[in-house]
Amino acid sequence: MDLPIAITLGDPAGIGPEIIAKAFRDAPEAVRGCFVAGDVATLRRAAAIVRGAGGVDLPVAEIAAPAEALDAPPRCVPLLQVVPPAAPVPPGRVSAEAGRIAGDCVAWAARAALRGEIGAMVTAPLHKEALAAAGAPYAGFPGHTELLQAEAAAHLGKPLAELPVRMMLANDELRTVLVSIHLPLREAIDKVTAGNILETLRITHRSVGAALQRPPRIAVAGLNPHAGEGGLFGREELEAIAPAVARARGEGIDAHGPFAPDTVFMRARAGEFDVVVAMYHDQGLIPVKYLGVEQGVNVTLGLPFVRTSPDHGTAFDIAGTGRAQAGSLLAAIRMARRLMA
Amino acid sequence: MDLPIAITLGDPAGIGPEIIAKAFRDAPEAVRGCFVAGDVATLRRAAAIVRGAGGVDLPVAEIAAPAEALDAPPRCVPLLQVVPPAAPVPPGRVSAEAGRIAGDCVAWAARAALRGEIGAMVTAPLHKEALAAAGAPYAGFPGHTELLQAEAAAHLGKPLAELPVRMMLANDELRTVLVSIHLPLREAIDKVTAGNILETLRITHRSVGAALQRPPRIAVAGLNPHAGEGGLFGREELEAIAPAVARARGEGIDAHGPFAPDTVFMRARAGEFDVVVAMYHDQGLIPVKYLGVEQGVNVTLGLPFVRTSPDHGTAFDIAGTGRAQAGSLLAAIRMARRLMA
Repeated sequence: MDLPIAITLGDPAGIGPEIIAKAFRDAPEAVRGCFVAGDVATLRRAAAIVRGAGGVDLPVAEIAAPAEALDAPPRCVPLLQVVPPAAPVPPGRVSAEAGRIAGDCVAWAARAALRGEIGAMVTAPLHKEALAAAGAPYAGFPGHTELLQAEAAAHLGKPLAELPVRMMLANDELRTVLVSIHLPLREAIDKVTAGNILETLRITHRSVGAALQRPPRIAVAGLNPHAGEGGLFGREELEAIAPAVARARGEGIDAHGPFAPDTVFMRARAGEFDVVVAMYHDQGLIPVKYLGVEQGVNVTLGLPFVRTSPDHGTAFDIAGTGRAQAGSLLAAIRMARRLMA
Repeated sequence: MDLPIAITLGDPAGIGPEIIAKAFRDAPEAVRGCFVAGDVATLRRAAAIVRGAGGVDLPVAEIAAPAEALDAPPRCVPLLQVVPPAAPVPPGRVSAEAGRIAGDCVAWAARAALRGEIGAMVTAPLHKEALAAAGAPYAGFPGHTELLQAEAAAHLGKPLAELPVRMMLANDELRTVLVSIHLPLREAIDKVTAGNILETLRITHRSVGAALQRPPRIAVAGLNPHAGEGGLFGREELEAIAPAVARARGEGIDAHGPFAPDTVFMRARAGEFDVVVAMYHDQGLIPVKYLGVEQGVNVTLGLPFVRTSPDHGTAFDIAGTGRAQAGSLLAAIRMARRLMA
């Protein structure tokens, strides 16, 4: 039998608890074997909001250990209380208390994954400012990725630099892995080095290969228009990207490119490649999000466990209304299951 | 009655003549009132290739003046010989002769448009190297846009700097106008100035407004991830883009933003905006091309006449085979007709 999948609560003031409740309400097959790592009162409140909207009763059942999730009946939400029971936080507001709850759930799930108690973690959105307001040990982490990287490095006894991770964004049509993420574009260009690209190619080869059960066909995007057109519009393709691709191919990685950025994603969507390595945040995220964010899944590659998340934030503006959609969370759960295989 | 539309031949060694012939063969309604500004022998050869593929006879009829195109029967290609009759050039090869023919057709059409003899020009693809090989007066122009800008400036007696033009890429779902085009990404960032953005907004407002017959709702993309997140990931949004948007709004332009680049195109596709101003080539072209280049149309905004083109090149690898598709050319013709209205 598979290991259970933990879904972390996310910021309790955001839409996380509601979309989790909706996923259990609407997609019992998709969430089979999943449980919520969170707070029972918060999730019951969300279930009540969602029940009100859908007219369906949705019990939240506390479990005592992750493995109990495997036997839960459909349309019941198994929940493991992994934080001290919380007083309700008002929806749509940044608070240190909410940030701490969100962070604690993620840290708990990371450790459970590292101990081998769960097969994957799917994280509902947290709020960067709330996490910062929570103070130590969360204040230094801009988001999930960095927090998980730190937990994993500590568990493995390695320095952070020896556990490079990369963000993959994926939907049913396209997978893209980013060389860098939250940097000014000028600084992102500085990160377009042969070393960073080669590292990205190795991580992509390993992780996407594990999910596909075969070596992935990897396209590498150029940085400049027309991939520099032979040096006419920039030299990064000649000096960093092409050498990294050559080196990766020498290691047996099925990497191709650099290709013109404006058509490589279309080519991958049409089936020519399994995944595109993008040189910066928006290069990769624009095509993935173009067809609608509700389908997008964020996957952290390079960690010693599977972690996926929906590709949206806490949506404080609609938190508490029951209007948030669970589509991206469900896609993240399905993706986690594929990556566990 | 409308004025006729000139379709320039493109590089005779490329797919231009074939896709023109296919457009006349397959879409008689779409090409009504159009004629080819080109060379009769070259187009007859293309018509023979295309006839062979489709089994339909496709006569090419020389006309003596653009206005005769308005009375041409369907499934006949009206052609005005605007260059000295040419010896056949081999398909798929760069040649100075082919570059000169392509350039002459474009220059003729620009002048005809400036004289008011035609209502629009639709340009089949030319080859940059062939144009360069043709020498003066074409060698200095990287492509159509710069050549047309020079013709227009000369006609109006203005310096080039006083005739700013911008590239718009459009398909049925999305329009995007680019602040800069063929530059290394680092240099494109240097062009993200309040002045350049404001100029782009003015041109977009005027040109797209003329096509829509109402003021367009313009979204402006940020440069950095999350549009800089309040200065955290870059300051161009605060220092250049937002001031340009404010200034444009002061001029009555319905401009909004800067918005996060990774979701603004999706929002425009969903109907929230009529057009997105993109900060650099690939930011705008990735989403437009993502759903398939065959639908894309390139429009030069800011010229004193209508000019559109298909969003693909000469495709030397398949020139002469009859395999090239006319979809993007037909979309360009339809777009030109809308812009003439």
